[in-house]
Amino acid sequence: MALERIFNFAAGPAMLPVPAIEEAQRDLLALPGVGMSVLEISHRSKTFEAIIGECEASVRKLANVPENYHVLFLPGGATLQFSMVPMNLLPAGSWADYVVTGSWSEKAVKEAKKVGAVNIAFTDKAENYVRVPRADELKLTPGAAYVHLSTNETIHGVEFHKLPDLGSAVVVADTSSHMFSRPIDATKYGVIYAGAQKNLGPAGITLVIIRDDLVKKAAENKAYATLPVMLQYGTHVPEKSLYNTPPVFAIYMTGLAMKWLLGLGGLGAIDKINERKANKLYAEIDRSGFYRGHAAKDSRSRMNVTFRLPNEDLEAKFAKEAKAAGMDGLKGHRSVGGLRASIYNAFPESGVDALVGFMKEFEKKNG
Amino acid sequence: MALERIFNFAAGPAMLPVPAIEEAQRDLLALPGVGMSVLEISHRSKTFEAIIGECEASVRKLANVPENYHVLFLPGGATLQFSMVPMNLLPAGSWADYVVTGSWSEKAVKEAKKVGAVNIAFTDKAENYVRVPRADELKLTPGAAYVHLSTNETIHGVEFHKLPDLGSAVVVADTSSHMFSRPIDATKYGVIYAGAQKNLGPAGITLVIIRDDLVKKAAENKAYATLPVMLQYGTHVPEKSLYNTPPVFAIYMTGLAMKWLLGLGGLGAIDKINERKANKLYAEIDRSGFYRGHAAKDSRSRMNVTFRLPNEDLEAKFAKEAKAAGMDGLKGHRSVGGLRASIYNAFPESGVDALVGFMKEFEKKNG
Repeated sequence: MALERIFNFAAGPAMLPVPAIEEAQRDLLALPGVGMSVLEISHRSKTFEAIIGECEASVRKLANVPENYHVLFLPGGATLQFSMVPMNLLPAGSWADYVVTGSWSEKAVKEAKKVGAVNIAFTDKAENYVRVPRADELKLTPGAAYVHLSTNETIHGVEFHKLPDLGSAVVVADTSSHMFSRPIDATKYGVIYAGAQKNLGPAGITLVIIRDDLVKKAAENKAYATLPVMLQYGTHVPEKSLYNTPPVFAIYMTGLAMKWLLGLGGLGAIDKINERKANKLYAEIDRSGFYRGHAAKDSRSRMNVTFRLPNEDLEAKFAKEAKAAGMDGLKGHRSVGGLRASIYNAFPESGVDALVGFMKEFEKKNG
Repeated sequence: MALERIFNFAAGPAMLPVPAIEEAQRDLLALPGVGMSVLEISHRSKTFEAIIGECEASVRKLANVPENYHVLFLPGGATLQFSMVPMNLLPAGSWADYVVTGSWSEKAVKEAKKVGAVNIAFTDKAENYVRVPRADELKLTPGAAYVHLSTNETIHGVEFHKLPDLGSAVVVADTSSHMFSRPIDATKYGVIYAGAQKNLGPAGITLVIIRDDLVKKAAENKAYATLPVMLQYGTHVPEKSLYNTPPVFAIYMTGLAMKWLLGLGGLGAIDKINERKANKLYAEIDRSGFYRGHAAKDSRSRMNVTFRLPNEDLEAKFAKEAKAAGMDGLKGHRSVGGLRASIYNAFPESGVDALVGFMKEFEKKNG
């Protein structure tokens, strides 16, 4: 790592693999053999066809995505998917189940309610979102169009470590903040979506993996023809995400990051690294009682480690002194308070070690 | 210009100012004094606040945008604006006038019709879009919610050189492919929008300049509360384009390109350069009759120069040989045929000279 770089614990946009940034930097003025910057190439060019094709191929390879799923790169972030999912998949007279485990699934509900009927299958909002439900707590409604989950809640640091048993329901998952941080069985989902800016690439693009029959079913709804063309999944499938000009550079960078991930050994390899990184941090949180995790132990996120100190003054002091020591972005979200260490795929283990060392020192001085 | 770079005549994404790319390249691994790549910084950080603030300030300075207009950077391209404009500004029971001078204004109509009533104030589709209307040809309807124009049609190469007299109507303009290529009086418009990837920056961001009273009026419509949160202008105004994670890098690059434009002397300076570049090319087209412009002379675009050769075989040969000579992207859109030279702000005059030279040689050999 270049000396001038610090450890960025921000919740996203977040650290990217250094080799990916270095490759982009080397070629930024002109792609080899092309004579133009990737910032300037036409999205209809053979060069970009190869770039987006390779990015899609990497996604398919990483998650073993079957042929009957489409891999799309769309604008607007997970927030636009909060709307696109019900607009496409929740026809009049039907309803959807939403599992609410944090701020993001709560926002998803708000958008879905604009479109149709929503059943809250679980929420622990009253406890300020500390855990995922046990299977027997889920109130699923037979015949629901789909069941929606946010499988890692970035703000609260609550993660599904495995998908709960949802019967035969069509599962729609916002996986933004832990996508590709562990193996994922795409065949268990109807739709998987993720803003890129945490684990996949830079801000500006959203990965959507959608099963073909759902795209077709959406188009059969009476209201479908009145949806904005950009919000119809069926627009983007035949055009392979090129209905209009996509964020070319964000797709290029995501492709470079996915290449790095494949080079590491794919999802099995990153799974072990992420497990080790998170364990180190939670072990330090649990060591003495000075630090206190926000989420219940069985629901702790490996990506967003949320924790408190004995009081808010110490929390502010911690964030300030950590920043001075080259560890930025540790202040927690205002709705949870305390600290949050976001340690996504590209966040180096040395940064976790540095934080653990800092935590020990801070406790010695202030405990 | 670095030797390995070629002349890219593509319609967008398109050439960017080399100094802007060079600055991005230099700082790509870590912004000076920040210790993170611009690809990694939080959109809530002071660093990004400064970046987006400076980008907005440049836009305001370039077009002298008054205080009662908001400058937004939104996802989804002009195509999403085709939907957002009527969804926000065309309430039930009202109607809008659309001036149709090419493929893009035609697409805008299609999206508006999903929302409400549309009156076609002018179209020359039957002539395959060769000109803008004379003032007396415009069939404006009193009381229309707004009148919409695409002020430069990228595919047909048809440009409004000045805004026609539209009376007291609220003017909504898609200026994607000639934004900031000439002076613009923002006060004459209710909404101005432009995909960045032609004259402003890289693909992935859309500039929207909207008058404050229209944002407020939109929120008063009964249907407004049911719009997707990302499609409500009122979401983005108070959040200053940061309701969710924006395409950070695209905004950064746009800021660098706007800085370059201000350094050149702003819109008055680029206006003269663009006039000279376009005149050189049209003079060559008109010189002998071998080449033939698509658009009527008074409606010729200074950004997208569309022209034909005596037959399609020669057109294919021209594009192929030009490419071999380092001039790429000259093949015209299939709906017009022939050739198209897109010569946006950052396209160097030396590239126009090279093309004119090539045209003369090509005519000598094939005329």
